[in-house]
Amino acid sequence: MLKLSRQLLRSSSAAQAWMSTAPANFEPGARIFAPYSIYKGKAALSADPLLPKFTKLETGDYRVERRGVIMLTFWPSIGERKYDWEKRQKFALSATEVGSLINLGPKDSCEFFHDPSMLSSNAGQVRKSLSIKAHADGSGYFVCLSVINNAVNTNDRFVVPVTAAEFAVMRTAFSFALPHIMGWDKTVAKLPFSGDHQGSGSGSGSGMVFRQAQTSEWDR
Amino acid sequence: MLKLSRQLLRSSSAAQAWMSTAPANFEPGARIFAPYSIYKGKAALSADPLLPKFTKLETGDYRVERRGVIMLTFWPSIGERKYDWEKRQKFALSATEVGSLINLGPKDSCEFFHDPSMLSSNAGQVRKSLSIKAHADGSGYFVCLSVINNAVNTNDRFVVPVTAAEFAVMRTAFSFALPHIMGWDKTVAKLPFSGDHQGSGSGSGSGMVFRQAQTSEWDR
Amino acid sequence: MLKLSRQLLRSSSAAQAWMSTAPANFEPGARIFAPYSIYKGKAALSADPLLPKFTKLETGDYRVERRGVIMLTFWPSIGERKYDWEKRQKFALSATEVGSLINLGPKDSCEFFHDPSMLSSNAGQVRKSLSIKAHADGSGYFVCLSVINNAVNTNDRFVVPVTAAEFAVMRTAFSFALPHIMGWDKTVAKLPFSGDHQGSGSGSGSGMVFRQAQTSEWDR
Amino acid sequence: MLKLSRQLLRSSSAAQAWMSTAPANFEPGARIFAPYSIYKGKAALSADPLLPKFTKLETGDYRVERRGVIMLTFWPSIGERKYDWEKRQKFALSATEVGSLINLGPKDSCEFFHDPSMLSSNAGQVRKSLSIKAHADGSGYFVCLSVINNAVNTNDRFVVPVTAAEFAVMRTAFSFALPHIMGWDKTVAKLPFSGDHQGSGSGSGSGMVFRQAQTSEWDR
Repeated sequence: MLKLSRQLLRSSSAAQAWMSTAPANFEPGARIFAPYSIYKGKAALSADPLLPKFTKLETGDYRVERRGVIMLTFWPSIGERKYDWEKRQKFALSATEVGSLINLGPKDSCEFFHDPSMLSSNAGQVRKSLSIKAHADGSGYFVCLSVINNAVNTNDRFVVPVTAAEFAVMRTAFSFALPHIMGWDKTVAKLPFSGDHQGSGSGSGSGMVFRQAQTSEWDR
Repeated sequence: MLKLSRQLLRSSSAAQAWMSTAPANFEPGARIFAPYSIYKGKAALSADPLLPKFTKLETGDYRVERRGVIMLTFWPSIGERKYDWEKRQKFALSATEVGSLINLGPKDSCEFFHDPSMLSSNAGQVRKSLSIKAHADGSGYFVCLSVINNAVNTNDRFVVPVTAAEFAVMRTAFSFALPHIMGWDKTVAKLPFSGDHQGSGSGSGSGMVFRQAQTSEWDR
Repeated sequence: MLKLSRQLLRSSSAAQAWMSTAPANFEPGARIFAPYSIYKGKAALSADPLLPKFTKLETGDYRVERRGVIMLTFWPSIGERKYDWEKRQKFALSATEVGSLINLGPKDSCEFFHDPSMLSSNAGQVRKSLSIKAHADGSGYFVCLSVINNAVNTNDRFVVPVTAAEFAVMRTAFSFALPHIMGWDKTVAKLPFSGDHQGSGSGSGSGMVFRQAQTSEWDR
Repeated sequence: MLKLSRQLLRSSSAAQAWMSTAPANFEPGARIFAPYSIYKGKAALSADPLLPKFTKLETGDYRVERRGVIMLTFWPSIGERKYDWEKRQKFALSATEVGSLINLGPKDSCEFFHDPSMLSSNAGQVRKSLSIKAHADGSGYFVCLSVINNAVNTNDRFVVPVTAAEFAVMRTAFSFALPHIMGWDKTVAKLPFSGDHQGSGSGSGSGMVFRQAQTSEWDR
């Protein structure tokens, strides 16, 4: 019995060692806030990635049910180095809008429109637009969020001048986050032997590998 | 005995905690669908990475047996916001074709040809070609798949206009996926002390590190 | 009882196998030094990423308390291939300063100023400045650190010429490290089912996915 | 006792489930071959990342003892679709040489020289040079390895024409691998609470975070 309990202790301590060696030792389910925030004279702007949500299919497989976004949050200045978080407004950049942003040249501009009632009879009542306009000298961009709510007659507008250096951080961080909000980090993290991309199993000369790799495109 | 069973419980709960702390809690073997899909007037286009397949060598090592691809799927529109998935056609981009795509400038074009019977007597009977042609004003690309099957006399053709923003998503996501379809994510995930890249083990002045790092190129 | 102990042994060895299969088998808490170092005639320069520090909130969630940096260290040459580590000076690049550096064109320059007493009555007593100046022919940069301490009347100055190739290593490695010093690697490593980004749970046609993905921007 | 053994079984099966859920289920120590290979008329070229080797310091910390490289291997054609692996020659690209390669414009060229006896009396006896020369029309590069061994009077020369698409694969894959051959993937994989980058622990207003992040540059 002594030997047995020693095994148990060893097993237990190995498992506990793991608990503190793992790539991340945050509690599961805990949220992690690491916004990239830019504080300027009239408003502040922060950016945060939000991951996609997956749904389990009857086959046991998974598909993205709800795409991830890069969430931009704007909140106004109310004095020197003071900002009012209660008056914040959000704008959720889709993968394609992120593509537009990271593709902007130093003289380019772009604008996105969101309407929560799009395609319904309330379309146009509430409307958000985000514009990114390059400075004429290429030294940065004006990032501007406008939220018009005709139902309650409010009109919020935030303008944050973003330097070329700050925009480079956004471009690099958004490019990093893009595959994650699309869910591709999950797709490529699969095991090497999980069996969903099976070949013929027969050996092949190196000259044939290229064609063999493409045979699955001939299946339906 | 009481102490023993407490150890057991602790070991068990630690292991279960792990199950929900791990980087991905999908079941092993489950497939994960996270296509990047573009719905346009006449057809839809989606892109998905497929990982390489490894084979175990007699030495206990592994090599890529079948390279991964980025699978493009096209399917036709059959009415407003309706698409016919049953009529889909696929085109599997190899690593080098992905290299060609992510290297395209805003005015560039490229075209790839695939033939499942290449180098056999049936060569040319069935033929797929994918072309990517820049709009004259640099605002995006036409992505066009043509599938000609002379054996059954069919000719499918799909054209999807892709905006510069959508193409930026593809370029960024494909660049992210490229090392994974090549298998390099596995190569670089090796342990720091796994012993296949051994040095002399002797200490070295910092000025010598650079040369020492290259000595293995002198081995066969 | 025999069957039981066999289970225990199996459990134990499985856990131990894990210990050597894990992505990194460094002891937890151990520091890992992998500086990118450039040795030149008058001084040496090395760069190292330092990760952010997180703090646990009362809600059980986490936020970045202290941002990460890319730490640059300069130390002077004191003879052929000899450098004096004791005389080193450091400069910690913030995320935005890293953005500035990785955004530099082959003819661009930039300069950063740090003052540990900024905004206090001692402001200006000690002052560090880092400048990066392109060579006129685009073949590289001069990276120069100046540390002026008026309190003790010292003035240290380090100049390291960096080739375009070395700068490309810095740009690529800094771009890789940037999301990590921001903490975004932790944000995107969350589990697919951890519940902080919940949708309605109802099914949706594919045409609706895009709008649904953005609904959370309408919440406060 | 029944309850106890059920716990044991559960613990055991959880651990075994893990074995097949882990990010990589290759045996530890196994080598993984996933070269990017280019077969051309007169020779073939393949590229493979080799990771750095770490050494444990007396403090319990680790430092890179031997830097990683991207290993290029050339071997000659000996007939149609036949290549002689026994006649291979290698060239190990250092981090800085990789920086030079990924920084090449479509009209640029570069050349590297390696000598295993550099700085000794045998310097120059054996000499390897790798040159990468752009085609005049920007459509690709000639990659050429020359190995001259004056001791045994041999002179091997390999020329592999690389298309712009193939070079884009190399640039993307080498950029991915660069932080790994430098060891920065290990540096940034540290735990959030491992304690080597401690702040004051006191709360701070958001306006102060930036300065606080840099205080460590003022330490020696």
